[in-house]
Amino acid sequence: MDIGIIGGSGYTGGELLRLLAGHPEANIVAVTSRSKKGQKVSDTHTHLRKIYELDFEDLSAEEVASLSDIVFTAVPHGTAMQVVPALIGSGVKVIDLSADYRLRTDVFEKTYKIKHTDPRKVVYGIPELHPDVAGQSFIANPGCYPTGASLAAAPLAKAGLIERAVFDSKSGISGAGAEPTEVSHYPNMAENIQAYKLTGHRHRAEIVQELTRLDGNISKISFTPHVIPSVRGILTTAHIFVKKDMGVEEVSSIYRNFYHDRPFIRLIKGIPVLGSVRGSNFCDIGFEIEKDSDRIVVVSAIDNLVKGASGQAIQNMNLMFGLPETTGLWMPATAP
Amino acid sequence: MDIGIIGGSGYTGGELLRLLAGHPEANIVAVTSRSKKGQKVSDTHTHLRKIYELDFEDLSAEEVASLSDIVFTAVPHGTAMQVVPALIGSGVKVIDLSADYRLRTDVFEKTYKIKHTDPRKVVYGIPELHPDVAGQSFIANPGCYPTGASLAAAPLAKAGLIERAVFDSKSGISGAGAEPTEVSHYPNMAENIQAYKLTGHRHRAEIVQELTRLDGNISKISFTPHVIPSVRGILTTAHIFVKKDMGVEEVSSIYRNFYHDRPFIRLIKGIPVLGSVRGSNFCDIGFEIEKDSDRIVVVSAIDNLVKGASGQAIQNMNLMFGLPETTGLWMPATAP
Amino acid sequence: MDIGIIGGSGYTGGELLRLLAGHPEANIVAVTSRSKKGQKVSDTHTHLRKIYELDFEDLSAEEVASLSDIVFTAVPHGTAMQVVPALIGSGVKVIDLSADYRLRTDVFEKTYKIKHTDPRKVVYGIPELHPDVAGQSFIANPGCYPTGASLAAAPLAKAGLIERAVFDSKSGISGAGAEPTEVSHYPNMAENIQAYKLTGHRHRAEIVQELTRLDGNISKISFTPHVIPSVRGILTTAHIFVKKDMGVEEVSSIYRNFYHDRPFIRLIKGIPVLGSVRGSNFCDIGFEIEKDSDRIVVVSAIDNLVKGASGQAIQNMNLMFGLPETTGLWMPATAP
Amino acid sequence: MDIGIIGGSGYTGGELLRLLAGHPEANIVAVTSRSKKGQKVSDTHTHLRKIYELDFEDLSAEEVASLSDIVFTAVPHGTAMQVVPALIGSGVKVIDLSADYRLRTDVFEKTYKIKHTDPRKVVYGIPELHPDVAGQSFIANPGCYPTGASLAAAPLAKAGLIERAVFDSKSGISGAGAEPTEVSHYPNMAENIQAYKLTGHRHRAEIVQELTRLDGNISKISFTPHVIPSVRGILTTAHIFVKKDMGVEEVSSIYRNFYHDRPFIRLIKGIPVLGSVRGSNFCDIGFEIEKDSDRIVVVSAIDNLVKGASGQAIQNMNLMFGLPETTGLWMPATAP
Repeated sequence: MDIGIIGGSGYTGGELLRLLAGHPEANIVAVTSRSKKGQKVSDTHTHLRKIYELDFEDLSAEEVASLSDIVFTAVPHGTAMQVVPALIGSGVKVIDLSADYRLRTDVFEKTYKIKHTDPRKVVYGIPELHPDVAGQSFIANPGCYPTGASLAAAPLAKAGLIERAVFDSKSGISGAGAEPTEVSHYPNMAENIQAYKLTGHRHRAEIVQELTRLDGNISKISFTPHVIPSVRGILTTAHIFVKKDMGVEEVSSIYRNFYHDRPFIRLIKGIPVLGSVRGSNFCDIGFEIEKDSDRIVVVSAIDNLVKGASGQAIQNMNLMFGLPETTGLWMPATAP
Repeated sequence: MDIGIIGGSGYTGGELLRLLAGHPEANIVAVTSRSKKGQKVSDTHTHLRKIYELDFEDLSAEEVASLSDIVFTAVPHGTAMQVVPALIGSGVKVIDLSADYRLRTDVFEKTYKIKHTDPRKVVYGIPELHPDVAGQSFIANPGCYPTGASLAAAPLAKAGLIERAVFDSKSGISGAGAEPTEVSHYPNMAENIQAYKLTGHRHRAEIVQELTRLDGNISKISFTPHVIPSVRGILTTAHIFVKKDMGVEEVSSIYRNFYHDRPFIRLIKGIPVLGSVRGSNFCDIGFEIEKDSDRIVVVSAIDNLVKGASGQAIQNMNLMFGLPETTGLWMPATAP
Repeated sequence: MDIGIIGGSGYTGGELLRLLAGHPEANIVAVTSRSKKGQKVSDTHTHLRKIYELDFEDLSAEEVASLSDIVFTAVPHGTAMQVVPALIGSGVKVIDLSADYRLRTDVFEKTYKIKHTDPRKVVYGIPELHPDVAGQSFIANPGCYPTGASLAAAPLAKAGLIERAVFDSKSGISGAGAEPTEVSHYPNMAENIQAYKLTGHRHRAEIVQELTRLDGNISKISFTPHVIPSVRGILTTAHIFVKKDMGVEEVSSIYRNFYHDRPFIRLIKGIPVLGSVRGSNFCDIGFEIEKDSDRIVVVSAIDNLVKGASGQAIQNMNLMFGLPETTGLWMPATAP
Repeated sequence: MDIGIIGGSGYTGGELLRLLAGHPEANIVAVTSRSKKGQKVSDTHTHLRKIYELDFEDLSAEEVASLSDIVFTAVPHGTAMQVVPALIGSGVKVIDLSADYRLRTDVFEKTYKIKHTDPRKVVYGIPELHPDVAGQSFIANPGCYPTGASLAAAPLAKAGLIERAVFDSKSGISGAGAEPTEVSHYPNMAENIQAYKLTGHRHRAEIVQELTRLDGNISKISFTPHVIPSVRGILTTAHIFVKKDMGVEEVSSIYRNFYHDRPFIRLIKGIPVLGSVRGSNFCDIGFEIEKDSDRIVVVSAIDNLVKGASGQAIQNMNLMFGLPETTGLWMPATAP
């Protein structure tokens, strides 16, 4: 499989390269970066020294397409829609890691305040929720928060049980990208936790889209993100208010049935932690039912750069090519 | 003011000593520790070297009382109720930092599964919510989580506006004490976040007690705690669902009026962070109102060992002795 | 290759399992732990859930040997020498990750204050310094600090250039093991650095052994370790005082020649960092020559659990079985 | 004491304000910042909310001088020499926290590659080494690394015992300032350690100046700095090679005699840690003598922003005004 990566200098680009280094079918043919053209990929991603002997190139979409069987676009939102049409037009398979194709066009335009120049119907690439990923030639790869939140709540949504859900998410700072900022400045981030976009984070639209697809009656979905002193990982604490009393076994069986054949979902008895998924494509899920209350607390843990981005993209790629979805991804977290 | 500390080898004991070192009226006469009897206080609390030349003593409650104008009890719950009666009987003022006297006796017994051997009516020492702290001779010092959560929601509760509240709290690990455990083991805590007691943490009972005192109709109060890779601090994200639509100015003025003369409450426009309160007795509070929703997200930040424990205890002491409540406590956080 | 692990509940055992999960020839047949007998391996190593369906067993050395082609012993020093003779006697290949066989017997006994019950001549398993690893049936796997320090200085030692060397090493806390201690307690370790055994760390003996093997005249070797707020990694700052003036190119070529065919050594122009090696078997090395001085500062970075322990053990295993030494180990670090 | 601060928006400016908030004689009359003119000081230093109601002003040196009894200059090196002459000319006392006046002019120019426009003889403000601070009207406040390194080695230097010294220092990242950079980017700094300027850091010149002042024969002084995942603090591991064999008591008494009346030096039996000095003006010092060797390892711990910068500046201020040097500074570290 010849693979091109458009926009390879950021964290998701680096993570695609890290993971594809262990993929038995993957052959990287081009990694583009306008600003780093001509530089060694491993000067930016120093952990890839000796693993790749590639330089960043400044190629057009058509040039990358002509070399590749599949292209990953890891560019900012608003940019992807300028690149994707040419790629698709060239007949190459495409996975877009930006936000551009994740939402219905009208919702996208309202959420991102950008006119969409390439509206089209796309499958949203959480394979556990969208079995139709297999067979697609273009996939919109989901956001990191929506992956963790949707996987935590989907079984209860499917069962029509959710009255209201409050997703309180805690992310590692790598989600904010490779560029130094006030928030990512070590003295500001260490020993701290930064709540942000308390009510207006754009990823909420993806969560709403995924859960209402499963249950058209859910309307009360809240989401508040935080960054914590961690490089990788998203822990989502889903406070879910349900419509009927249930016991542990009943809820467990709803989750087990929903995810029974999904290799990357691990339903656990305790409470998930980032340490058990870091570097891996797993999503760990656990829950507890509050006594004398209508609340179930579901906790999910993912690595934001793997299951929340590049790993899930490769999982989608595997399915699009008819490979087992675990190909090249069946590795444990790096722990401790 | 001659001061005794019963149980001085833990973090709250150390923090009382740290803060009282800068209190113009404070004179430490005794610090007890059964297990560390005869050892220098500064061998345990090495940051106090040269500041105190005290040894831990193993004294009875009566002996400590006879030396002191006020005694702080910083012992585990269940132990305080064995010590406090003798102290009170000796006529000394007492501030108990344990959980033993924080709750109505029946609620305490149900929550802690311990028979209470010394039921009595006590003022709960959040001075911002209990002006009657002044004039007391015995105060139950509040829990760390309930301090942050109650201060975040009290103005809205007082206004009768709360329909439902979900407190999602993130604490530094010092709240778990000085004893090494699995959770506090650096490889387990670093770059991680640990949700725990998802639905059954005992501090919930204090939050319920405080908020229902302000509004007897609130019943839907949820609380889930987490520990984050931080030594100090509690950030509480309060997802509050309110009974009516309000604008920013209306909510602001509810908070301003409620806290207008309280020196340690800082109402801020942005989102509070731990870094601005660490080491200080301040509680920073900010909020955001969700559009097209009944949710207000209120965020509070405190230092769990100061406003959440020893600082608040000193604030209570000041009021009990007729001093300005800021005496010895009017210092900024240590930042960055 | 059927593989047994004796003592699999600690960090090096877990790391062997993590790495071997991606090794194409590896088949784990037994993992022992006396204290965790009957428990699932993935209850202890929760990152290995779904990857391994093994239970810890309490088997004798002979029983493990009878199932295995090779056995790794990951037990405390002093214990290994009680297990290894039976393994070797059973004809199975053995790699011992303890300290028991790393040093000449007399040096071992003086350093560890233990009588050695199984003195024998063993190859010390840093393959870059001991090409005779291939063909052995028993290897003593080196200590973490000595791996980083010896690899940093070996080329200059081989060239007979070292007058004096001061190794100032900074390790992640995972080197201290999975058991919570005062030092590993998050409030003690976070935002701190703990120097320890300033002059008497036992790993110095291994460094001395390795460097004097290359240059019998070196005697002035100092070593001071520190733990830093990091889970993994050892950065060694080697202050090397040399016998003659050299330029950058001369020193570079000494290193290049020495390591020219060693896949896991990466000679870099800048200064190595832990982030580029974490989770991988690479050792990054860089240096700077002080102007108007006899000092060269060489910095090496390894992951203490991989190149400093389990990864190097697998590298040794590969060589002992005639496989390419990179088999199952050719993966990049997990970064960021 | 009316105090002006020129350049108050950085970490040392913020730290002066934090510490002076507790100084009984201090009255801040002006804090300048060109770029933040008109903004509230507490919008930048959010931990100072409610403590100061000051705005940043853009005043000339003369204007600040006219309002002040003493002025702290907390501006970049190269800038201070443009401001200080006017201040001194105005008759106000001055403490310069930049590097401009720390070194002999010729050494400064060689080290900083800048022509000095205001050469003058200045006392270097480590009060423990320069009793003549008292009585000065202008002081050059020392660098952070040189403070920790010089205090660690001074007693042995004074005794003429040092043959060679290697200072391997580990600093918190706040030393690099408030501006986000690649190095301070949380994903780059967390769980890492960054050695830098392995042989050419400019602070070495100050260490050399201080130690050769005590012993003109020392020439072999090496210095390598690192940043560690800590906001505050510098731990210096001083590998000191001495001219004669000594026992613990002999070395202890050299240190005790040298520092016997210095309140901020704490000689300890164990190994200093950052946690015991963070936020305070103390310098903790401990040592160990290597057996069968000429090496003594001395470890010192300071808070880089306090004893390494703003606290030491206030200590100098106290002495210049005839106050006890501990005035406003006699507080313990914030620990844990």
